[in-house]
Amino acid sequence: MTLDERLHDRQFVRTFFTTPTAVEGEDDSAKMLKSAIGLQGMQAPDVWVPDNEDATAPNMRDEGAQNIIDVVAADGADFPGEIHPRVVWHRDSPGTRYQGFQHMLEIADPDNGAVEHIDGFVIPEVGGVDDWKKADEFFTIVENEHGLEEGSLAMSVIIESGSAELAMGKLRDEMGKPSNNLQRLFMLVDGEVDYTKDMRAITPTGELPSWPELRHNTSRAASAAGLIAVDGPFDDIRDVDGYRERMTDNQAKGQLGIWSLTPGQVVEANKSVLPPRDGYWLAEIDGREEELTEEDGLQVYEGDRLSLEETPDGYRLRVGSNEQTLDEEELKEELLDVLAYVPSLNDIVDSMAEFEAAKEAGKGAIAMTRAATVRIDGVEVEVSSDRMWDEATYQALQTPITLFQDVYENRPDQHEDLAELYGEDVVERATNVG
Amino acid sequence: MTLDERLHDRQFVRTFFTTPTAVEGEDDSAKMLKSAIGLQGMQAPDVWVPDNEDATAPNMRDEGAQNIIDVVAADGADFPGEIHPRVVWHRDSPGTRYQGFQHMLEIADPDNGAVEHIDGFVIPEVGGVDDWKKADEFFTIVENEHGLEEGSLAMSVIIESGSAELAMGKLRDEMGKPSNNLQRLFMLVDGEVDYTKDMRAITPTGELPSWPELRHNTSRAASAAGLIAVDGPFDDIRDVDGYRERMTDNQAKGQLGIWSLTPGQVVEANKSVLPPRDGYWLAEIDGREEELTEEDGLQVYEGDRLSLEETPDGYRLRVGSNEQTLDEEELKEELLDVLAYVPSLNDIVDSMAEFEAAKEAGKGAIAMTRAATVRIDGVEVEVSSDRMWDEATYQALQTPITLFQDVYENRPDQHEDLAELYGEDVVERATNVG
Amino acid sequence: MTLDERLHDRQFVRTFFTTPTAVEGEDDSAKMLKSAIGLQGMQAPDVWVPDNEDATAPNMRDEGAQNIIDVVAADGADFPGEIHPRVVWHRDSPGTRYQGFQHMLEIADPDNGAVEHIDGFVIPEVGGVDDWKKADEFFTIVENEHGLEEGSLAMSVIIESGSAELAMGKLRDEMGKPSNNLQRLFMLVDGEVDYTKDMRAITPTGELPSWPELRHNTSRAASAAGLIAVDGPFDDIRDVDGYRERMTDNQAKGQLGIWSLTPGQVVEANKSVLPPRDGYWLAEIDGREEELTEEDGLQVYEGDRLSLEETPDGYRLRVGSNEQTLDEEELKEELLDVLAYVPSLNDIVDSMAEFEAAKEAGKGAIAMTRAATVRIDGVEVEVSSDRMWDEATYQALQTPITLFQDVYENRPDQHEDLAELYGEDVVERATNVG
Repeated sequence: MTLDERLHDRQFVRTFFTTPTAVEGEDDSAKMLKSAIGLQGMQAPDVWVPDNEDATAPNMRDEGAQNIIDVVAADGADFPGEIHPRVVWHRDSPGTRYQGFQHMLEIADPDNGAVEHIDGFVIPEVGGVDDWKKADEFFTIVENEHGLEEGSLAMSVIIESGSAELAMGKLRDEMGKPSNNLQRLFMLVDGEVDYTKDMRAITPTGELPSWPELRHNTSRAASAAGLIAVDGPFDDIRDVDGYRERMTDNQAKGQLGIWSLTPGQVVEANKSVLPPRDGYWLAEIDGREEELTEEDGLQVYEGDRLSLEETPDGYRLRVGSNEQTLDEEELKEELLDVLAYVPSLNDIVDSMAEFEAAKEAGKGAIAMTRAATVRIDGVEVEVSSDRMWDEATYQALQTPITLFQDVYENRPDQHEDLAELYGEDVVERATNVG
Repeated sequence: MTLDERLHDRQFVRTFFTTPTAVEGEDDSAKMLKSAIGLQGMQAPDVWVPDNEDATAPNMRDEGAQNIIDVVAADGADFPGEIHPRVVWHRDSPGTRYQGFQHMLEIADPDNGAVEHIDGFVIPEVGGVDDWKKADEFFTIVENEHGLEEGSLAMSVIIESGSAELAMGKLRDEMGKPSNNLQRLFMLVDGEVDYTKDMRAITPTGELPSWPELRHNTSRAASAAGLIAVDGPFDDIRDVDGYRERMTDNQAKGQLGIWSLTPGQVVEANKSVLPPRDGYWLAEIDGREEELTEEDGLQVYEGDRLSLEETPDGYRLRVGSNEQTLDEEELKEELLDVLAYVPSLNDIVDSMAEFEAAKEAGKGAIAMTRAATVRIDGVEVEVSSDRMWDEATYQALQTPITLFQDVYENRPDQHEDLAELYGEDVVERATNVG
Repeated sequence: MTLDERLHDRQFVRTFFTTPTAVEGEDDSAKMLKSAIGLQGMQAPDVWVPDNEDATAPNMRDEGAQNIIDVVAADGADFPGEIHPRVVWHRDSPGTRYQGFQHMLEIADPDNGAVEHIDGFVIPEVGGVDDWKKADEFFTIVENEHGLEEGSLAMSVIIESGSAELAMGKLRDEMGKPSNNLQRLFMLVDGEVDYTKDMRAITPTGELPSWPELRHNTSRAASAAGLIAVDGPFDDIRDVDGYRERMTDNQAKGQLGIWSLTPGQVVEANKSVLPPRDGYWLAEIDGREEELTEEDGLQVYEGDRLSLEETPDGYRLRVGSNEQTLDEEELKEELLDVLAYVPSLNDIVDSMAEFEAAKEAGKGAIAMTRAATVRIDGVEVEVSSDRMWDEATYQALQTPITLFQDVYENRPDQHEDLAELYGEDVVERATNVG
């Protein structure tokens, strides 16, 4: 057995969407659950989390557990993603842990008709690994009581304490022991609000720290133990750019999934990790990126952070506030530092196919060239960058395609959206390459 | 028992102030100790560390141990903070460890009259966790020899090696075992100079690396094991701005305490982690922050990194070197990305009280609004940001208040300073909220 | 025994240079090996790695193993660095592991004449620490079969998975156990391409993430277990500036070695970690560094990110886009934040000698002053910065000298280059100080 292979049905989770289970003061306290379970296509998350913990008032949680049962039993068969309710738990409170256990026992009772559509449960506020084992033991008892297969209910946890962060480093050693069923672990989900409290961090404006080390460690643990790393909620729902930036940052850490608080965020997060339909060039100057626009086959820079003029001796290039006089060769090199190409889904498939063909022809490594004519302030320059691809490069760059294929296989409800986004033929090539 | 609660008297330590124990060539080698023990109010640290290690020449350390005894026995009763002498120790030198043990045995001897004012000892240069256990065992022997309660002397360590950094990840597993008394652990203090040596890091200018991962791991270990995280010394004593920036960075990691080398640094560090008396708006542009000034209820931006003019079609906004044409709605959104409000102590108390009232009225989450009229280049714009507060937000943002209350309870000598800083009524509200 | 001392012959490795072992389609498949083994001086790496894994096509690896034997047996005696062939290995493939074992057994057979020049083997794609033990066991069997001393073959590993990253945290606990010979461990080498694959990270342009936490953790593990930390390959061979920046960043983490793909990169990496011949001042503005030029004893700033003029009230200073009016004292302080001195090898030796003399005279700490007259826009200002040096500072700043001495002792073939670079007298002083 190789622990670092992902063994669950979904090898990737883009979206983790939470919904309050019971809202007080509404005609129907299950209204939000009923609305969420009807989502389809890009609005439907990979994982839906009826949230019987923080999103639901403490005095509504028994009703919330019943609402989960009713709504999932009625409509769970048609929901296109997985369903993982979050129950209550706390490393420091046996009473809370027992309440969470009772809710799991109830929700997973086959007589209630919901469990056949439920893939697992999400356990918040875990502490050290022994605390994870207590939760796992309750899963085992629930499965045993209800005649479900041992390990069939997935367990996901919210990482919102320093002790849980440390516990992630031990999973590979603990999973597989005969005394537990921790192989049921599925998602490691960061919860930065409570984590900030647990770490006692303070920022002047009250903004959450970005916790890069936590996110690295979550992604690393997911890699080492064959799990899925998911980032926590992004509070400022209106700030779509901020949400996208956070996802880009997460993806560079291998944390490909993120919490979504609204169907709008679900759409953003379902799409964010997919390559763009059209490739494009961008200029990165002083840490800020600007897209070039294509005009008649030229890549045109229209911002004012870059300027270029021809001089009698060569070129005068300004990058941000830094000016240099360069000859043509130096200009091209300098521009290669500033410019980069973002490949489309089709570009990636092309490169993979090209490498596969070269490999069949007996070559271990080939140079992939990307060339363009760039226009800055009316001056045109040809730039061309090479990158050596070997087997390792090929595999490292394959992740977006593997993810695409996982989505395509598991989310037929998104086939239409994908076809609209990329065109049928690109989708077909992408599902067959690799 | 919940390990991650802080069980020592002080739940927060803002300041860790070291003083040489014996200075050669002075009339009175204990002069600096005598001066330091007289500090009161904001100049007095939360933890005072008579430093019988690096700050004191090796040949003066026996005399230094005696000076600690004399000075603390005479004046320790009136010192407002805790007293934790640092003794010598080294993971690689049994001779040094034995010397440290002998000094502890002497200083803690009740017949010498100092130990009743001494809260613990600081052990430098620890290695792996087994090395920490050796130190702990010496504490136990010292306590046993002198009839002190087992575990009554707190142990704090300086993290200045890769092995000590790794050991921090094991504390939660090791504390509480019957074979040690590691529950005596109190502070985890980074020591970046020796750490840099141990890691063999090189920078071109000889400046210390900022070691963000070390500081994260120290804060995490403190969180997981109920301890206090303290950052190391900031060498450039004249650079007050640099010291403040470092503290702000530390606080965002949950490392709320810092080493102080002078009473001036103590004042800065005692105040740094407290919220400001007056809230204010700031603009963050290209990673640099500028405070807005209030004029007649308007928030006025007076720098030149931001400019704004009304145009026939809307607005022309420049942020740094980036210009955009925007309509009013877009302008407001763009400004919300740039502007942020730093709440005062009073503002935080207000928000907490507002949330508590809402909670009593049965609401789990409420929107906190922060609005202002901002003037840039004479153009006035109203901006308003909402933030959802739920129980978790409330608790995460409560840290500065909990710290304030810990200070208020443990440092009566600072009551006057606090009243002067905030006004009596704000202090009273802050001590009662939550 | 103190585990964190480096016990191998080389306490520092600047360069880790890989060469394909067998190239198909050439007259002589060992051509590249034969060329590499002839390198001398700055072009020769500290560690040469005939690469029988990724750099060599799978179907050429048996021939590659034979080529290693032939080439090293013939010319290994004259190679100035250490020789550590990389064999195949994979945590998830017993077949690959067995093949690697067979190649080691063959290459290390004394009858084949190569092993007397071989210092160890490099094992790629390791997983958890149990996987490292499997590799170690094969080393032990190879040594035993061939009558080599147990532990005489060094083992180095490539860290290219989350599980291997976690395993590094356990080495200090595992080394020294009677059931293994893990003390043979020598280098921890990051392999970011495969690591990116294992972590499933995605970047828009396909560029590798910079993985700062991985590099920190590698350096920390090396420190805690007495090993050598080496960074992975830098793909863009033409980008010399980028390679240098990466090395500077690594060095600030204590990762002093780096992979080199070409003799040109070897030269850069052999020199990068050595102090410059001439000290110089630099200005750091908005994260970008510019060197000042010396003219008649003045340090002249010639860029346009800094401007200065005298005004009737004092000075008008612009740093980047930030302007301030300052008096002379404020100007000097502000400039000290912007300016820094990069000491030469000779400067470092001077400072060390000065501190050593002070220590002999009974002083524990002295102020080291660095002064200069700086000219900006024709205005001259005298700046002077003090830094307190104590024993810890001295030791922390000694690393470049210790490294220099290690290079001098182990690389006689570079003596001429060093003398040319620094002058005979500076080299002699540097080899004798400390």
